[in-house]
Amino acid sequence: MQLRDGLVVIELNPVFAPETVKQFKRLAGERFYDGLSFYRVIDGFVAQGGDGSDLGELSNVPLIDAEFEINWDEEFEYIRVQSPDMFAAETGFTDGFAVARDPSTDKAWLAHCPGIVAMARNDDADSSRTDFYIVIGQAPRHLDRNMNVFGRVVYGMDVVQRIQRGPALDNGIIDDDMASTRISKLRLAADIPEDELLKAYVLDTSSKGFKKQLKKRRNRTQKFFKNKPAKVLDVCQVPIAGRITK
Amino acid sequence: MQLRDGLVVIELNPVFAPETVKQFKRLAGERFYDGLSFYRVIDGFVAQGGDGSDLGELSNVPLIDAEFEINWDEEFEYIRVQSPDMFAAETGFTDGFAVARDPSTDKAWLAHCPGIVAMARNDDADSSRTDFYIVIGQAPRHLDRNMNVFGRVVYGMDVVQRIQRGPALDNGIIDDDMASTRISKLRLAADIPEDELLKAYVLDTSSKGFKKQLKKRRNRTQKFFKNKPAKVLDVCQVPIAGRITK
Repeated sequence: MQLRDGLVVIELNPVFAPETVKQFKRLAGERFYDGLSFYRVIDGFVAQGGDGSDLGELSNVPLIDAEFEINWDEEFEYIRVQSPDMFAAETGFTDGFAVARDPSTDKAWLAHCPGIVAMARNDDADSSRTDFYIVIGQAPRHLDRNMNVFGRVVYGMDVVQRIQRGPALDNGIIDDDMASTRISKLRLAADIPEDELLKAYVLDTSSKGFKKQLKKRRNRTQKFFKNKPAKVLDVCQVPIAGRITK
Repeated sequence: MQLRDGLVVIELNPVFAPETVKQFKRLAGERFYDGLSFYRVIDGFVAQGGDGSDLGELSNVPLIDAEFEINWDEEFEYIRVQSPDMFAAETGFTDGFAVARDPSTDKAWLAHCPGIVAMARNDDADSSRTDFYIVIGQAPRHLDRNMNVFGRVVYGMDVVQRIQRGPALDNGIIDDDMASTRISKLRLAADIPEDELLKAYVLDTSSKGFKKQLKKRRNRTQKFFKNKPAKVLDVCQVPIAGRITK
């Protein structure tokens, strides 16, 4: 996704949100998002973009059913981070994505950490359509299991943080369309010519190195820490580095 | 604090960090920070600014002793948010600031939420001096009770989010001084001429309205929520609105 201030690279997650990813890919393939704006942007919360016409009520794009959680599959790559977490029985990482789990129901869902990408909707659970948001502030975990989370920013969160904010008192709505940050273009990697394609490197959350890193973050032994922190980890405060090369 | 992209207003907290506030005010009064840069900026973590000469080892500015926590005073305005919190026995708000408490020791400290301002230091607890950081990402609560937290951004976090980031792999250090975001000027309200003075409105966290808001956030009854969130609140995810007028 190209914004005025730079490139934002999003990794999609068809395992947790197959129909949402399918629709998003179709829309991106049709260049639906090109030229549209982030029209609802609340600092410390979310940047929401798309056509903005009240979530596309006048649109002929089909609605997407709720994809709030999935059944846990023992085959998933998984590393546990915290149990219990404040908002869920358990959190961890699956293929680079922060997830939460409820072992009692065997359900799992993508956690609303900074950088996650999800579909906006109305009150109806099955009313996601075209408009999406990126979390730009402290994890709004109360939205977990209530939204179709379908991706995460793996590169360019600094660019996302430059998206023009709207007035907090007005629910972040930017009335002046000229003031809002526009999506110059949004392309699928599959549609980019080979010679323009960038390589994205993401952290392997199933690696031994990552396991060690989690352990180190949970148990801070450095002499810098005069008061040893509680031996807990917020799954949304674990940096999941990504980088891009030609 | 004036940055290229706009104004940032910081509220100091002399109750929790009296010596730090005293030194910061003296330095600001001497225009120490004017022209200095945010030289260590890690997206999702902190923007650190100041002279950058290894935290002023060559400086003749005195060091500040640790002001990591204070004894709780029953006279404080206080509203509880969460007990237990993942990182502390209890969290709440005191005069607009997110605080954490340990009732067993009667200690309290300012929580590392987005927007808090704290002094950087070396391994020595008493080595704060001039350079400060602003939290710009998911609350790094492991730093609680380890830093001299002395203020919070009450206006202009969107401007703070535009501060130029450094490379994550290089601990956020921006080598090219020309690339970094500079502090145009940093002034104390007391030093600003009456006719240029702005009025800052901050949320009254001791008000009935705020109490109601907390209750509403803890217990989400709106039909939007198909899966009712856990009835918990992250003290760092409560919006503490501020605004500025002439």
